[in-house]
Amino acid sequence: MSYNYRADLSYPVSDAEESAVNRPIVYWDDIVEGDLREGGAHAFDADAIKRFAREFDPRPTHLDETAADASFFKGLAASGAHTFAVWARLYWELTPGWATQAGTHMRDMRLFRPVRPGDVLKLRLTVLSKRPHPLRGEFGFVETKHELFNQAGQPVFHVECTLMIERRPVRG
Amino acid sequence: MSYNYRADLSYPVSDAEESAVNRPIVYWDDIVEGDLREGGAHAFDADAIKRFAREFDPRPTHLDETAADASFFKGLAASGAHTFAVWARLYWELTPGWATQAGTHMRDMRLFRPVRPGDVLKLRLTVLSKRPHPLRGEFGFVETKHELFNQAGQPVFHVECTLMIERRPVRG
Repeated sequence: MSYNYRADLSYPVSDAEESAVNRPIVYWDDIVEGDLREGGAHAFDADAIKRFAREFDPRPTHLDETAADASFFKGLAASGAHTFAVWARLYWELTPGWATQAGTHMRDMRLFRPVRPGDVLKLRLTVLSKRPHPLRGEFGFVETKHELFNQAGQPVFHVECTLMIERRPVRG
Repeated sequence: MSYNYRADLSYPVSDAEESAVNRPIVYWDDIVEGDLREGGAHAFDADAIKRFAREFDPRPTHLDETAADASFFKGLAASGAHTFAVWARLYWELTPGWATQAGTHMRDMRLFRPVRPGDVLKLRLTVLSKRPHPLRGEFGFVETKHELFNQAGQPVFHVECTLMIERRPVRG
């Protein structure tokens, strides 16, 4: 079984997605402990913050400038779930071709400060360690640290995540 | 400063949101250690799974049935970030009036099994403990455990979350 990155992608793709379709597969075996990479530039605007909040976290601080001004956040701020979703997007962008199967366990997730309209987030990803799957030879685990920073370099989000990643197939 | 749950909500509201607008505020002081509540019924369908994934986690397992069938998940599955967002929604629905300001720290988040089209998730919320904010008298912290189950009663998601909640204002 191989994770088919060249699957029938019968939907329009962005430039980032287009390059994803054509990228080589990076297996567990190829991932290096200590690897540190930074990238991404996800911009938040008020419309996107409100649209996400209406569907998933309909609180005044995420929906309405006037109510948000009077709240703890003192201004419109993205839902933490929105920031989490953007983390998933930036992780995907920053690991082209990684044969990631799942994030199975996340530890010490912190939201340090609000994400505002106009903020642009980038991700710093550190590979902490790796180990084979104890039972399934076709997979391995990678322990990773993820940090989001805003355009002022301030930390916004932190999580440590166990990733299950496909191993390079053995040629029979 | 009071978190105004009756703010100018100049957007159409669902029944759930309508009842939210009219509900009394539940302050940190009102929350009881050991409180356990269950509820919500969030249904996933293939369109919603793909729509979320296109924006935040554009992997074949979340976007394309054929590719998903050949993957580790053996069928279309929601992004973990989508499940996280639905958790935020169900938390909001299950805590009417709670003066929640922020989730500041999340621990031991686990995704136990895929969420499929047709799955309906409910949330079980347990209040583990509470303590006043050490510095700011207008807030308190509540430690909570959150578990999502599918319609077969199988655990799907777990997280423990520190919530910062407004305290009842002192009348001067």
